[in-house]
Amino acid sequence: MIIIGEKINGSIPKTSAAIDAHDEEYIRYLAKAQTEVGADYLDCCASRVDNELGIQEWLIGLIQEESDLPICLDSPSPQTLVEAMKFCNKPGIINSISMEGDKCEVILPAIQGTEWGVVALLCDNNGIPEDAEGRLEVFADLMEVLKEYDIDPSRVYIDPLVETLGANEESLLCFAEVCREVKKQYPTIHITSGLSNISYGLPVRKMINMAFMTLAMNAGMDSAIIDPLSRDLRGIIYATDALLAEDEMAIEYIGAYREGLFGPVQQ
Amino acid sequence: MIIIGEKINGSIPKTSAAIDAHDEEYIRYLAKAQTEVGADYLDCCASRVDNELGIQEWLIGLIQEESDLPICLDSPSPQTLVEAMKFCNKPGIINSISMEGDKCEVILPAIQGTEWGVVALLCDNNGIPEDAEGRLEVFADLMEVLKEYDIDPSRVYIDPLVETLGANEESLLCFAEVCREVKKQYPTIHITSGLSNISYGLPVRKMINMAFMTLAMNAGMDSAIIDPLSRDLRGIIYATDALLAEDEMAIEYIGAYREGLFGPVQQ
Repeated sequence: MIIIGEKINGSIPKTSAAIDAHDEEYIRYLAKAQTEVGADYLDCCASRVDNELGIQEWLIGLIQEESDLPICLDSPSPQTLVEAMKFCNKPGIINSISMEGDKCEVILPAIQGTEWGVVALLCDNNGIPEDAEGRLEVFADLMEVLKEYDIDPSRVYIDPLVETLGANEESLLCFAEVCREVKKQYPTIHITSGLSNISYGLPVRKMINMAFMTLAMNAGMDSAIIDPLSRDLRGIIYATDALLAEDEMAIEYIGAYREGLFGPVQQ
Repeated sequence: MIIIGEKINGSIPKTSAAIDAHDEEYIRYLAKAQTEVGADYLDCCASRVDNELGIQEWLIGLIQEESDLPICLDSPSPQTLVEAMKFCNKPGIINSISMEGDKCEVILPAIQGTEWGVVALLCDNNGIPEDAEGRLEVFADLMEVLKEYDIDPSRVYIDPLVETLGANEESLLCFAEVCREVKKQYPTIHITSGLSNISYGLPVRKMINMAFMTLAMNAGMDSAIIDPLSRDLRGIIYATDALLAEDEMAIEYIGAYREGLFGPVQQ
């Protein structure tokens, strides 16, 4: 599993407060802590309208002083994303493109011929298609455009866009169907998702998130944008990998436990 | 999900000690507690060679004084199972038959024409077949015999027999393959399993057990022989049912939470 650590995001209240207070310490702590528990990328999202690029530059600078991990640049603005690439000392992932507006036209030329990856959301100017069929149509359109810019599928992280379970009880079923079809068409492509939507509004969100993680991995999801500091989430990812025979003799599961990455906290 | 509460089993150290000490209180507590949290059946297993039938009679008497739930009669001896049926005030489940020895010949005539269900293990005189194909052959043989005794598939709980993950990394994959094929052939049949084997020898067994539960339910398992007092296991079952669209608008998930059946313990 490719873990994208989600903590440095201005839409999270504690991170937002740290941004407002220009609290270097807390941002550095988030970068270091997520790195130590095994994240593969660190998401970086100012989540601000005013001075977004300036804040991104400040965040990226702090992250790169604390961690060698590549950054997952996160913004709703394609222009900000392209500008912020310049502050990164190595290729990471752009989060995100979709078939909405000019995202592809602005971002894809900037990553053409580089090693940057890109998250691609399965939505367009009409919003998020209701069913799997509609999302797979957007997927086909996206792959067409990505091909025009010579972006290999192995650089692409498809986000099928999971809906809130409380609003659509077939949310996971639709998500899993898209995952299976996407992986069938492009075996080397990545599939990623956040967890905040699926459990929104439900009690004990952790339970829904854990079961979603297991079912999504079973359907082919090989990346997730999550809080890597959650011991239970890490545990369920290691356990699911072992059960799906992607961890020979559960060696990584046992190793991660011995490193203290999940399970009861050792005193 | 049909939950068979596993706690009244003489192979569990605390229950074993209660049997040895003739501790009525503890057995009554286990019957009551498992009933209160929503078990559908209570497993009852003396796990003794000496006086097995006498101990079963004592356990069954105590259970029936505390709970209206039907009993899942559990013994390696088909003769004990048939004898112990007489102590039960309503039909339950016989645990278990297989194609081994004279189990079918002794048990099936006794439940023919009754409402008793039966757990059927996919093994025979040669032991547990190594792969899914072998287990499905035993399954075909079992269904043949069950038909001879007019046992409808809806009364049958197939246990595909999950192996220890640490010994066979494809254990879950094999289990899931058997589940899917069994359900495809007989949509009204039940599939059940315990959890002790899959995680045997691994650290933080709860993580493996939770992910196994989710993956097995996704493959068609609709019953489990578990500790219903485990809040996390209950939570993951409710969450998985909701994600698999078997709980409309997550109403049962939310209801179980409100009843305090899972989630953080309310003070």
